[in-house]
Amino acid sequence: MKTFEVTILGSLAALPHKGKITSSQILLYNRQSIMIDCGEGVQMMMSKYHINPSRIKLICISHLHGDHLFGLPGLLSSFQHHQRTEPLTIIGPVGTAEFIDVVHKLTQQYIVYPIYIKEIDIVEKTEVFHFDDLVVSAFPLNHRIVTYGYYFEEKARVKKMNKDAVKQFQLTVEEIRQILKGEDIKRNEGLLLKNEIFTLPDPPFRSYAYCSDTMYDEKILDWIKGVSTLYHEATYLHLLVEKAKERKHTTAQQAGRLAKKAKVKKLIIGHFSSRYNDVKELVDEARNEFEEVYAALEGSVFSI
Amino acid sequence: MKTFEVTILGSLAALPHKGKITSSQILLYNRQSIMIDCGEGVQMMMSKYHINPSRIKLICISHLHGDHLFGLPGLLSSFQHHQRTEPLTIIGPVGTAEFIDVVHKLTQQYIVYPIYIKEIDIVEKTEVFHFDDLVVSAFPLNHRIVTYGYYFEEKARVKKMNKDAVKQFQLTVEEIRQILKGEDIKRNEGLLLKNEIFTLPDPPFRSYAYCSDTMYDEKILDWIKGVSTLYHEATYLHLLVEKAKERKHTTAQQAGRLAKKAKVKKLIIGHFSSRYNDVKELVDEARNEFEEVYAALEGSVFSI
Repeated sequence: MKTFEVTILGSLAALPHKGKITSSQILLYNRQSIMIDCGEGVQMMMSKYHINPSRIKLICISHLHGDHLFGLPGLLSSFQHHQRTEPLTIIGPVGTAEFIDVVHKLTQQYIVYPIYIKEIDIVEKTEVFHFDDLVVSAFPLNHRIVTYGYYFEEKARVKKMNKDAVKQFQLTVEEIRQILKGEDIKRNEGLLLKNEIFTLPDPPFRSYAYCSDTMYDEKILDWIKGVSTLYHEATYLHLLVEKAKERKHTTAQQAGRLAKKAKVKKLIIGHFSSRYNDVKELVDEARNEFEEVYAALEGSVFSI
Repeated sequence: MKTFEVTILGSLAALPHKGKITSSQILLYNRQSIMIDCGEGVQMMMSKYHINPSRIKLICISHLHGDHLFGLPGLLSSFQHHQRTEPLTIIGPVGTAEFIDVVHKLTQQYIVYPIYIKEIDIVEKTEVFHFDDLVVSAFPLNHRIVTYGYYFEEKARVKKMNKDAVKQFQLTVEEIRQILKGEDIKRNEGLLLKNEIFTLPDPPFRSYAYCSDTMYDEKILDWIKGVSTLYHEATYLHLLVEKAKERKHTTAQQAGRLAKKAKVKKLIIGHFSSRYNDVKELVDEARNEFEEVYAALEGSVFSI
């Protein structure tokens, strides 16, 4: 099975604190890395947790608040310094391109490797990128500024053949091509051989959803239903539910409730307010609603 | 004597590396702090080295390369988060204001404390700011983009009175006022009492000059002559003098030579290329030219 795991580089809300940084994580799928959000100091964390920056092909920015964004200019300039030649795609809300352009113009940073910036402006879950076997979608969250969640889903591009059936029906090369294209086979005298006879069922597909920053909003349930691993912000304990509502953040209890309603397999909570010295109380609160809860501690690696 | 010291927060060139950051330092004068340059990760270093951010009244940016600038957006937003109300002045080259404005616009960061941005465009040493007893000047350096050095000089605003002389000549209140204004005293029958009879000579004034990034350029000698402490970049060993010239940086040998020619008292070198695991060889090279050389190691505090 292909590697599919997420490494937490930072999970603090708002500010770096005591050697920890704000939101950033690395999703590794089959030797290709995707960075999700990019808080200040992210390069130090990548070096600390042995993440190879050159594997990053895609950076997904949830929203343009500084605690998710301010590590980006330095990272892009380090890529150049390390003579990156491979293209990089950056996906984010409208404004992402202006941010990058102005920084490069003012710092007179000469970037040679290709950067493709894809600004999204969507109201439904929408496919925004794909690798060979991984589809990336985005969907709107509910925060103080335009914010997107991201959904990463394995998808077999080509069906695996059922060799026994191929042998039994003695398929020709042309017929095998038809099957690989997903077509059925029509033989003489109206004989129809359905595609699924010759292909194996897909293995269970794994998926990862990233939801930060957002207030509790059941609108996203349809979009994240049944996801293997859900990362959801849980900035506060439920004691501060009013503050959470006002700042458009989620409490740990609410994150647990949402995970349960969405029937996810595993919940990772993060984006912790730095007022909590020990995030165990946030995990415990979420566990009252949903059992499989983990804290996004820096350096943790979760397999999806 | 008033505190006058500089704390090194970072002194790497170009990129953060192994837990160290790029250029930033804090000049503390009499309980007021000035930040000079602001590399990414500066907040973590301030917390590590117990620097109180709320004392920062002035930030001087040498130039708009990312390794001197990318910590600024996060710092400004943290000030807001900590409900700063005191004004902050930022001095930097043309473009500084656009950088800050665009970041605040795109991140929708609502800053309430007053920020005064002073963009400078100068060809000679020019006073750009002053505290009660400290004058801040800037002067042009010689780098790939517009870059300024900064000069910080103690200056007594009011002369100290020589009490013995005041008593001997029985000065009136009005006459004391004249002396404090720097005037001489004319008494009846043409008696002229010179101001310097009644004032004590100024104590030796301390000064600090920051020169980074720049290639070796004797043009600055007049502007830094006799400075108490000179911080000068020394990116490479002299073995790489051609690279230094091409990238418009200085070698350790050149930094030493400049300190000697400028008759400074103490030289701190920094902005080290991360190729040097041990900066001792850079210090040794500079010491061949000038004796009092120190390395700008992170966390070091130098009294001026």
